[in-house]
Amino acid sequence: MNTHPHDLRIDGRRLWSSLMELAAIGATDKGGVCRLALTDLDLQGRNRVISWAREAGMTVTMDRIGNGFLRRPGRNDALPPIVTGSHIDTQPTGGKFDGNYGVLAGLEVVRTLNDHGIQTEAPLEVAFWTNEEGSRFVPVMMGSGVFAGAFTLEQAYAATDSQGVSVRQELERLGCIGPQVPGEHPIGAYFEAHIEQGPVLEDHGVTIGVVGGVLGIRWYDCVVTGQEAHAGPTPMALRRDALQVAAELMQEVVACAHRHPPHGRGTVGQVQVHPNSRNVIPGRVKFSIDLRNATDALCEAMDADIRAVAARLAQRSGLDIGIERVSHYSASPFDADCIRSIAQAAERLGHSHMPVISGAGHDAIYMARLAPTGMIFVPCKDGISHNEIEDARPEHLAAGCDVLLQAMLERAGVVS
Amino acid sequence: MNTHPHDLRIDGRRLWSSLMELAAIGATDKGGVCRLALTDLDLQGRNRVISWAREAGMTVTMDRIGNGFLRRPGRNDALPPIVTGSHIDTQPTGGKFDGNYGVLAGLEVVRTLNDHGIQTEAPLEVAFWTNEEGSRFVPVMMGSGVFAGAFTLEQAYAATDSQGVSVRQELERLGCIGPQVPGEHPIGAYFEAHIEQGPVLEDHGVTIGVVGGVLGIRWYDCVVTGQEAHAGPTPMALRRDALQVAAELMQEVVACAHRHPPHGRGTVGQVQVHPNSRNVIPGRVKFSIDLRNATDALCEAMDADIRAVAARLAQRSGLDIGIERVSHYSASPFDADCIRSIAQAAERLGHSHMPVISGAGHDAIYMARLAPTGMIFVPCKDGISHNEIEDARPEHLAAGCDVLLQAMLERAGVVS
Repeated sequence: MNTHPHDLRIDGRRLWSSLMELAAIGATDKGGVCRLALTDLDLQGRNRVISWAREAGMTVTMDRIGNGFLRRPGRNDALPPIVTGSHIDTQPTGGKFDGNYGVLAGLEVVRTLNDHGIQTEAPLEVAFWTNEEGSRFVPVMMGSGVFAGAFTLEQAYAATDSQGVSVRQELERLGCIGPQVPGEHPIGAYFEAHIEQGPVLEDHGVTIGVVGGVLGIRWYDCVVTGQEAHAGPTPMALRRDALQVAAELMQEVVACAHRHPPHGRGTVGQVQVHPNSRNVIPGRVKFSIDLRNATDALCEAMDADIRAVAARLAQRSGLDIGIERVSHYSASPFDADCIRSIAQAAERLGHSHMPVISGAGHDAIYMARLAPTGMIFVPCKDGISHNEIEDARPEHLAAGCDVLLQAMLERAGVVS
Repeated sequence: MNTHPHDLRIDGRRLWSSLMELAAIGATDKGGVCRLALTDLDLQGRNRVISWAREAGMTVTMDRIGNGFLRRPGRNDALPPIVTGSHIDTQPTGGKFDGNYGVLAGLEVVRTLNDHGIQTEAPLEVAFWTNEEGSRFVPVMMGSGVFAGAFTLEQAYAATDSQGVSVRQELERLGCIGPQVPGEHPIGAYFEAHIEQGPVLEDHGVTIGVVGGVLGIRWYDCVVTGQEAHAGPTPMALRRDALQVAAELMQEVVACAHRHPPHGRGTVGQVQVHPNSRNVIPGRVKFSIDLRNATDALCEAMDADIRAVAARLAQRSGLDIGIERVSHYSASPFDADCIRSIAQAAERLGHSHMPVISGAGHDAIYMARLAPTGMIFVPCKDGISHNEIEDARPEHLAAGCDVLLQAMLERAGVVS
């Protein structure tokens, strides 16, 4: 049992077996998982994880929003814990790995340390955050958001599902309201392992994504107003076709992203055409704009860029173009030390790695407000997630877990 | 009563007054008319027109699809009649002039000839065609279509409205099935006066549009298939964004129209984005394409053009683009003699005139299959039609009616 910490390896088969066992709770016919937040199935999943944690000698506490903390004491148990975790709720047509991997990878780290009788200086914790997905109750990342003070416990409690059932009702019904005040729980550092949910690692043939941070997001509604008219009797020169102007602006959303590389992203996902009739020139088109970039400054630059383009287009076409910002999420750069320790661990372990940025939201975004934070991505098949066909390779999941182990040990300190 | 035919003028105030009286049947609060085909109100409108015709000494016959023919005998009553007309059914939110003007202008021609005791060599007729609008029963231009053999009487009879009531049931209920077999009715020539339903005359400040024909139409459904993916985690370079490719093709629809001047028209009126979610890159976009031009050859050239553009775009983007033709209407060039006689009448009468082309469908399209045909357009306010705010100026309506009178007299011959 005198393995040098750098030579420790987690048990990839045990990790995989736990993932499959957890995925059986709420399993769908198509190979996915439907385990919506704060349902009976979610409780079964939580209890399954909690019982594994107890078997691994961990203590379990819960806070008032139902976030669970599975703790392995450190030699100096007064130190703030080095925390990892994610979530175990899923999308309605979710997969086996999104979130679940981050929680079970943390559990596997502890099991591995137990196997080798290794004690850490600081305590280690594995957290599962309530309702990350936001499918049943909005907002997304609810548990970690309350924990980080992004919104209040009362706001989260008041959220209702489509049946009018509230978060508070379900937490009470399931017995998931713990005594801790969310946030009154020290965090020394936070690491989260997650499938990438995008195609970059697979495209590069790389195993470990060293996540530099999470993209900032700006959401807009754009309305182009022209003049509805019959397609037949109206010559081209006399048209005020809202869709043609909208189509040009839609392409500019993508061009704007390309003007702000390497992380700029621009998406038009939603379009409403009025009156939406085959032989009527559209009088009004409403569409969404989603702009993302690695820093808030770059997000603001993209904001100014698309507004300037829209203003020129409005002037040239004579049509009215309104752009209204409807939501806004700050960019979350991760901690330089956490990033470095993840990259070094991957390097030492001989896994190919590259810096990546997360385009999607994760609980780690909120943790980054509280403590040094880093994330580890592993590839998922075809970059597909939030889908029952979501898939990941056991060796990639094991590699990510090995990196997590190394990064947590470096941060927590090993008692020699 | 020895007025030279060229010096005859219709009575603009009488024409206007009849238009207003007919518009009172089914009048809407917003100043429009709702008199759907084969409703009680439509019957009231028909009966109003028929009683005016009888007062003007005309005989009335009806065919089996309910088309009405109001006849003023000629000196040689065996000659095929010179026919004018249009329809008196309206859109649900229709105006006072669309169709109604063409019927009442014909009646005013007869009243004017009566006033001056002028006999024509050939008989004159004013037709009102059943269900031109197609709002309640499809297809549009039903009565004239059956008359011209574009589809059968049985097909028209079988058409049902949204309540499941058939054309045959309503024709029977209203007593509108006449003894004539549609089409077994000679037509020497056909003229139709109509508001333009477009902005060209108003834009040019011109009173009379000498209609060269009706644009051919090609309707398509276009589907662009890419790959649905999350807007956040998917970098620009790895996207297969169906909407971006669709937006480019939508602009090409307009560019295609501009490449086929002066009458080429290209419209995208209808768009469906899948999954139509703000933060999901669209995986599939379906949209309509409406291409029009003055001849079938030009329509086919536009067809080949847009298909070639789409094929290049599919190859460049790697996305699948499917274009399916869903409907097709031939271009209807009008008769050169009819066109010339309308232009000469406008010139003689001192009205500004210009050649125009009709982008919308009219009963005259079907008549052009049977006899020499021409149409006279007058301006409508802001080019707006199929709308309760549809409006036209009395002096323009009178001018169009004067042109109609002259053109009909030239064709029918005046007994001196």
